[in-house]
Amino acid sequence: MERADIAIIGTGPAGISAAITATVRNKKILLFGSRNLSDKIRKAQEILNYPGMPGLTGPELAESFHRHLKELDIPITEKKVNAVYAMGDYFGIQASGEMYEASSVILATGVVMGKPLEGEKELLGRGVSYCATCDAMFYRNKTVAVVGYHEEAEAEADYLAEIVGKVYYFPVYKKEPHVSCQVEIIREIPLAVLGDTRVEGLRTKTGEHPVDGVFILRDAVAPEQLVPGLSGHGAHVDVDLQMRTGIPGLFACGDLTGKPYQYIKAAGQGNVAALSAVAYLSR
Amino acid sequence: MERADIAIIGTGPAGISAAITATVRNKKILLFGSRNLSDKIRKAQEILNYPGMPGLTGPELAESFHRHLKELDIPITEKKVNAVYAMGDYFGIQASGEMYEASSVILATGVVMGKPLEGEKELLGRGVSYCATCDAMFYRNKTVAVVGYHEEAEAEADYLAEIVGKVYYFPVYKKEPHVSCQVEIIREIPLAVLGDTRVEGLRTKTGEHPVDGVFILRDAVAPEQLVPGLSGHGAHVDVDLQMRTGIPGLFACGDLTGKPYQYIKAAGQGNVAALSAVAYLSR
Repeated sequence: MERADIAIIGTGPAGISAAITATVRNKKILLFGSRNLSDKIRKAQEILNYPGMPGLTGPELAESFHRHLKELDIPITEKKVNAVYAMGDYFGIQASGEMYEASSVILATGVVMGKPLEGEKELLGRGVSYCATCDAMFYRNKTVAVVGYHEEAEAEADYLAEIVGKVYYFPVYKKEPHVSCQVEIIREIPLAVLGDTRVEGLRTKTGEHPVDGVFILRDAVAPEQLVPGLSGHGAHVDVDLQMRTGIPGLFACGDLTGKPYQYIKAAGQGNVAALSAVAYLSR
Repeated sequence: MERADIAIIGTGPAGISAAITATVRNKKILLFGSRNLSDKIRKAQEILNYPGMPGLTGPELAESFHRHLKELDIPITEKKVNAVYAMGDYFGIQASGEMYEASSVILATGVVMGKPLEGEKELLGRGVSYCATCDAMFYRNKTVAVVGYHEEAEAEADYLAEIVGKVYYFPVYKKEPHVSCQVEIIREIPLAVLGDTRVEGLRTKTGEHPVDGVFILRDAVAPEQLVPGLSGHGAHVDVDLQMRTGIPGLFACGDLTGKPYQYIKAAGQGNVAALSAVAYLSR
């Protein structure tokens, strides 16, 4: 089996950026992921803060990433990676039942969300959002529900309240939320996002709430399932500023390394991870 | 004086990205820097690895940054920041002789290339200055040397000539300088600032010039000179993954935080710094 210099897992902004920089640096790479790139890109309504590309839509950003990959002749290996094994001086990568080898690995898998609400996936990008910073603007004078799975969601609810008409906050945790007085807390367990072509409401165990948008802000799932022995906290992998994990030759970037979950931050970290992998290869 | 939420110092990719994200997050910002953006962008021949924008030139990237700033109505305050003072719950910013205030500050000043002159650090504040506007008054009827690393230094030399007794200008670049007739140009390579307790002269490769003060005008100021009390290593500021420095409310991003020196990494860190400042403001 031919061994790649760098295997990159994930085709969101972090993985794409790592692939581009590694290729420019003449490394032989394997890029695992979906040709559709990440759902989080494709379904974004508008991206306001990717510097140099003002006000573009998710599909436009995805398209420009594809163009960039094509320009550099970077193919995507469309397989799902199930496990990465550190073998000492190389890594074994199990993907859709096959084994691959690479001298170094960059994880850019994003954060895995928990179980979706009923209707959530269907209405993603049509009223369902995972990012207050990105999408608040679309709900000026409108009513939104924020489903918060952790306390950090409270700040996002407060931010939304500065912009939108009305915010209902559904805390999915026990602690008493501290939100601004403009945010109305509703202690009900969310079950389903309602609506056919667009979000029309949120159904809870107790009743139904008509809203124009639902922001679902979850905590994430542990990545040590992907790489046995990898150290992290919750859904995130611990990295240093050079994107090194605790395992030599293994790097991580993008949402996987922690908040903020932002396209440009992910792209920046992908670049750093690639250059750190290049440095590791020439050690 | 109206106090900004976030002052951003520098108009390279890091500063621009921070300004964009902070503005999207509804913060009142001050963006200090050159309308020409950074020389490092303008002079790049081709940038291969800014994801989504394949094979673009430096001037093209600069142009797209300008378009983005314009789209979001972000003005550039074209002043050189000489010092940032942490005042507890706000920062005082000294820029081209004026004072500004901001609740938080993001440093995106890039790295100072090149080694300091011999004696420069030792005699800083005792005859060595980085700011003509700030210190010209101390040299009435005296003789000063201006070591200019870029053309913008010429205007500072002219300004000094209006106030001090005599100005010698040492250009450390190839282009022919255009200065007023009161300024005497000396084409010699500066090596050392001379003097024990105060500046007494400037030594070049060719000879020695007795002067009372030496103004050293580089593209960027070393971080610990810009912000008294800031901790770093060499030309770099220590930051964590959230771009926090050791001073609460003060963030850093881009080349200033260390290698690699890359556009997309700088843009990513600028985004993170802005969101960390937003979090700091709502603490």
